[in-house]
Amino acid sequence: MAWTITETSQIDAKASDRLGNKFLTGNGYMGYRGTLEEYTKEQRTATIVSGLYDKAGDLWREPVNMPNGGYIQVVYQGKPLHAQTSPLERHSQSLDIRHAVHERSTTFLAEDGNAITVTSKRFTSAAAQHLFCMQFTIEASRECDLVVHLGIDGDVWDLNGPHLAGFKTSVEAPVISLTARTQEKGVLVAVCECAAWAGGETAYIQSEKNIFRELKLAVTPAHPQTITKYVSLYTGIDAPDPLPAARDLCRAAAQTGFEQLLEKHCACWEQRWQGCDIQIGGDEDAQLALRFSMYHLLSIAPAHSDRVSIPARGLSGQVYKGGIFWDTEIFMLPFFSHEFPEIARNLLMYRFHTLDGARRKAREYGFRGAYYAWESQDTGDDACTLFNVVDVFTHRPMRTYFRDKQVHISADIVYAFWSYYAITGDDTIFLDGGAEVIYECARFLLSDLYYSREHDRYEILDVTGPDEYHERVHNNAYTNWMVAHTFDVCLRLSEYLQGRYPTRAGALIEKLDFQQDLRAIQEIAGHLYQPAPDPLTTVIPQFDGYFKLEDVSLKELLQRRLDPYEYLGGGSGLATTTQIIKQADVILALYLFNQKYAREVVAANWEYYEPRTEQGSSLSACSYAMIAAQIGKIDWAYKFFMATATIDLTGDSKQFVGTLYIGGTHPAANGGAWMAAVFGMCGLSWSDHILTIEPHLPAHWTEVTVPIRLQGQCLRITVSHDKVTVQAAGALPSEFLVRVNHQIHPIPPGGTLAVSLVKQEH
Amino acid sequence: MAWTITETSQIDAKASDRLGNKFLTGNGYMGYRGTLEEYTKEQRTATIVSGLYDKAGDLWREPVNMPNGGYIQVVYQGKPLHAQTSPLERHSQSLDIRHAVHERSTTFLAEDGNAITVTSKRFTSAAAQHLFCMQFTIEASRECDLVVHLGIDGDVWDLNGPHLAGFKTSVEAPVISLTARTQEKGVLVAVCECAAWAGGETAYIQSEKNIFRELKLAVTPAHPQTITKYVSLYTGIDAPDPLPAARDLCRAAAQTGFEQLLEKHCACWEQRWQGCDIQIGGDEDAQLALRFSMYHLLSIAPAHSDRVSIPARGLSGQVYKGGIFWDTEIFMLPFFSHEFPEIARNLLMYRFHTLDGARRKAREYGFRGAYYAWESQDTGDDACTLFNVVDVFTHRPMRTYFRDKQVHISADIVYAFWSYYAITGDDTIFLDGGAEVIYECARFLLSDLYYSREHDRYEILDVTGPDEYHERVHNNAYTNWMVAHTFDVCLRLSEYLQGRYPTRAGALIEKLDFQQDLRAIQEIAGHLYQPAPDPLTTVIPQFDGYFKLEDVSLKELLQRRLDPYEYLGGGSGLATTTQIIKQADVILALYLFNQKYAREVVAANWEYYEPRTEQGSSLSACSYAMIAAQIGKIDWAYKFFMATATIDLTGDSKQFVGTLYIGGTHPAANGGAWMAAVFGMCGLSWSDHILTIEPHLPAHWTEVTVPIRLQGQCLRITVSHDKVTVQAAGALPSEFLVRVNHQIHPIPPGGTLAVSLVKQEH
Repeated sequence: MAWTITETSQIDAKASDRLGNKFLTGNGYMGYRGTLEEYTKEQRTATIVSGLYDKAGDLWREPVNMPNGGYIQVVYQGKPLHAQTSPLERHSQSLDIRHAVHERSTTFLAEDGNAITVTSKRFTSAAAQHLFCMQFTIEASRECDLVVHLGIDGDVWDLNGPHLAGFKTSVEAPVISLTARTQEKGVLVAVCECAAWAGGETAYIQSEKNIFRELKLAVTPAHPQTITKYVSLYTGIDAPDPLPAARDLCRAAAQTGFEQLLEKHCACWEQRWQGCDIQIGGDEDAQLALRFSMYHLLSIAPAHSDRVSIPARGLSGQVYKGGIFWDTEIFMLPFFSHEFPEIARNLLMYRFHTLDGARRKAREYGFRGAYYAWESQDTGDDACTLFNVVDVFTHRPMRTYFRDKQVHISADIVYAFWSYYAITGDDTIFLDGGAEVIYECARFLLSDLYYSREHDRYEILDVTGPDEYHERVHNNAYTNWMVAHTFDVCLRLSEYLQGRYPTRAGALIEKLDFQQDLRAIQEIAGHLYQPAPDPLTTVIPQFDGYFKLEDVSLKELLQRRLDPYEYLGGGSGLATTTQIIKQADVILALYLFNQKYAREVVAANWEYYEPRTEQGSSLSACSYAMIAAQIGKIDWAYKFFMATATIDLTGDSKQFVGTLYIGGTHPAANGGAWMAAVFGMCGLSWSDHILTIEPHLPAHWTEVTVPIRLQGQCLRITVSHDKVTVQAAGALPSEFLVRVNHQIHPIPPGGTLAVSLVKQEH
Repeated sequence: MAWTITETSQIDAKASDRLGNKFLTGNGYMGYRGTLEEYTKEQRTATIVSGLYDKAGDLWREPVNMPNGGYIQVVYQGKPLHAQTSPLERHSQSLDIRHAVHERSTTFLAEDGNAITVTSKRFTSAAAQHLFCMQFTIEASRECDLVVHLGIDGDVWDLNGPHLAGFKTSVEAPVISLTARTQEKGVLVAVCECAAWAGGETAYIQSEKNIFRELKLAVTPAHPQTITKYVSLYTGIDAPDPLPAARDLCRAAAQTGFEQLLEKHCACWEQRWQGCDIQIGGDEDAQLALRFSMYHLLSIAPAHSDRVSIPARGLSGQVYKGGIFWDTEIFMLPFFSHEFPEIARNLLMYRFHTLDGARRKAREYGFRGAYYAWESQDTGDDACTLFNVVDVFTHRPMRTYFRDKQVHISADIVYAFWSYYAITGDDTIFLDGGAEVIYECARFLLSDLYYSREHDRYEILDVTGPDEYHERVHNNAYTNWMVAHTFDVCLRLSEYLQGRYPTRAGALIEKLDFQQDLRAIQEIAGHLYQPAPDPLTTVIPQFDGYFKLEDVSLKELLQRRLDPYEYLGGGSGLATTTQIIKQADVILALYLFNQKYAREVVAANWEYYEPRTEQGSSLSACSYAMIAAQIGKIDWAYKFFMATATIDLTGDSKQFVGTLYIGGTHPAANGGAWMAAVFGMCGLSWSDHILTIEPHLPAHWTEVTVPIRLQGQCLRITVSHDKVTVQAAGALPSEFLVRVNHQIHPIPPGGTLAVSLVKQEH
């Protein structure tokens, strides 16, 4: 079964960056990069805690990389054994994605011919969020003495650091600890480590940012040595007194023991997979890639808190300032809403908790309502800078319009709230803050509209759409459609709440002083310009004047580059004056509004935009996959599905924009893989209480089984080339219907619906 | 008296470029660069004919440089005598700006010790536009034989050429001729030359693009040789058959003779100066600089035609594609309206004749009405390219928004028509096309408005104002004020015409189907947002968000440059994200609307914007001069006056933008010099039939005398530190009043008004 990822190749610096992302383990609270135990900041070790940010001086505000409690360095004959620099006999690193357990095994070949093998097994506990555990074994082909340093390494990798200062170490046997404070807000962080081994001499080495134990171990071929490490992390955000909390947890973990902790951890993961594992028959590669994508989403999803969300690079480092982008709402939320609604709810509630930051941003730009941050952190204030890319030619920061002009972010969030509700049926989210978010977003977008007397319509001017290579455009189709949808949601929601919860609905409208804006939205909604297919070609212009831009081929455009890393957008980017786009824009809109146009129109747009799309964003491939499936281009759908599903498996993604490092994991692409499989290949869509299933399976896929949750129900859907089966776990509401082959069927209560896809002769 | 400009310095390539501009002679039909007779395309000789443009292949469309009929090369002992490369004993080049006569005198020191002096005297006839005449004398310190080549050199300097093909030469003694056709439209051009000399051997040398005579002349110290040349030019635009026309003119000129032609030419210039010469007492430098500025304007003004206008670089070459910019209407027209109204009328009528081009441009961008070309040529279609500057770092054409976004051009033209009318009282211009231009410009600007419900006002979005370093801004104060003025003019004009010429007024409105737009303008005019002084600082924001830009000093900004020629605007220019502006923008608006705000507000704006202005355009200094004078900063006014008045005298202007050559003459700055002297120092302004005179003379100026024409009247105004005198040539209408020292006075009919400026004790 396709559950394990293994790498055995030699590790250089580039590979260790890649593997650090690929082999990441996490539990939503923390992410621990898939680096090796002897690695330090040079190899980009990182322990990222969700929701903890810091700003050092005038540098970019970003996540804090916590002191590394997983550090172990074996020293043989005075030489540290290091996978990157020591001669190796064998090396392998693997990840069991079913249980989220990372293992490594490396045989070092010493100068004296002794073969020393270190193996480790570690996990970031799914059962105890603040805990990270490891078993580390040292074997030798000949009897020898070794020195081992292990402990907490506070001298960490930073992009815009250092973020920690005032380090303090302490030993309260068997626990050692390191505390420090963040620079900006002085948040106390504590990392504790408790180690167990067969015994022997021990000493403590303490320096400014480190505390290590020094063990002297004797190893014989018959008697390997095993060290078990328990590492705990707390911050001042989690606990009033992080150090005692961490120390207590560490001690308790050591008492419980590695095996039992591992068992609990594995049980959690088993349960997760039970709820969401998709089985693809006939394609081991696709199976593994899809599971790997879901593994990453599950590793970083904040099941524990509704005050944090998932950053664009997950918990893999500090890239993109640890910012939460629209990635979460548009590309990750569908997975969570359909598989783990309680996590989806947390993600959405994060937006409610950061609403005041969005209000501040709206005011900053002269608007009302809520203009959400392009890069949101703990407060909801925008971490996105006005100069977000560095020019490769002049090495100057380049003015970009991500922060100012991507107004669609607020509409994306409204779309996400409404989809969550449509999928889960959970209307309590509106009363718990969702309605306030939606009204404030609608208000913001209302305040950004202009009326053209010339065309007797409202327009949305000077925005940047999903395709960031074309900044400051007018009437971006995606944006205009999304804003129209926002107004529609706003009006439907206010009507719904008035009907269902009249008192609270009225109180909210009053509290927000929203009555007048609501009336304005009612008036205006129908007059908002909706860019439509060109009458001749049926292609939808991405924005005003798009078709007038130079129609150069992507290949030729790329040949015009003078530097492989030059940014194609911005003020003078090569793409800006052409029809070459960075990522799905109209095509994404056609997925989000998948009933807006006939299949022929959708196909014409896919055919037009696909060759003009650089696929320069990891958000792009899934849309092209889903629409390709919908229009019957199964080969293309498969190609784009694999592109999005393997992005962190291969590590072949863009590592630089201009001179900016953007490496890390790609949770939006991971979510896109799930969408491409479920919405694309299996052809599931949910609307108006009808689950439509229009499979578009690749020829070599024999069967796909998808468990999903809809309206609180668990369904198990199996799709093959000739049959669709829907199995309900419990009783379904009578209005719940399934459409297959354009025919609508009810599901027998607690039973199974099976529909043949083979065309019947009449 | 300050009437002659002389240069005696050694000539290198850079100097010859500068002197080519400085010593230009012209007559409105043609401009002949102030190069020397032996110069060829390497030294940028040029004969630019007004209104003749050509496009070679995919290159920029630009003026045609005509074959050079002024060519003379003296060869001594097999070596051509060339001022740049031969040893010189003496050299001087001078221009009598009173009569527009260019002279040169160069003594070449031959290897054998013989000193050969060539002198020439030449003029571009003001009396016969197609004629250029020259007297060329050769002296020698020792008896010798010389060879002289003279004739027509068709191998010309081009920026985006070659523009001429199919050269044909002919000899029809005593006339030689060269004809060719332009590449794009096949316009035939003909240059003829007739030479007279003492006689002797002669031969003709003809090659592909040249026809020369070869003379062998004997010169003794006592007997110099003089060659008289008559050169005539015609194009297919001027004459159905250019060659015979040119040949006839050439022959006739030779019969008339040099002296008589010169006399007529000088008489024309004497008459011109009589009408417009300003006398500045106490400042020879200022006197010369101002006259020099007026000389250049008079040399290139199309007195002969209302189908052409004045390009931004006059007739000095092909820079800026020979395009007519807003320079003409805003910076040159005041001079002509007040001194030569018939030329002002020609300049304005050019806009009527190119109205269809402006209509095409409006349609191209989805507007209605007339959107005038940013760079207008013969058809009114826009010669401005979308990529108008080349990036110094990548050598790529840079997307600029001159063409798309400087909508103020149409408002500038309306402003000019209305000012012309206000100054001259000539309302026939409206019936002859001006009303159509004004209505169509108003219609265009109407179709570009957006209504903000949020602010209950109409706004003008996504424009570039005069300060081109900040492209695509919203609500540029200059633009919004000018558009409001356009609407005001449109409404006042339609009312005026309805009252005065009801039938023709009605017919025009009907022809243009303008009734509905006129009503819309009536409705909207009062609701157009007019950026106003900040309540705290009284500084007017140049555009929305201007004050939020980085407030860096100009010095620091310039220090950030990595290349001295890097363009500060465009997509990634250093100035774009700062408050540093290229040129007067708000300050220009404050001059154009000089009664809009109190002096304190005007002063606050000058103080704010002056240090933030690069003065990177030759259009800028005059506004800063005029406003400085108005607010009593006389030293600054003088500094800026001298900057604008000496630009072509010193030649110290920008020669490159990015990698683009922009050298040439600066007629807008020349016009600005006149404005700075008359409107600034002398403090003249004309409004509502009151001539206000508020002198702000520099301390060392004893007296300034300005002849101007107002409402068909000739006035002679003398301003000193203690007195203002206004002398009228004829009877003035009774409503014509003069305001001095806040007191209003009538002018005695045919008499003189004298008002003391010395404050009287009461």
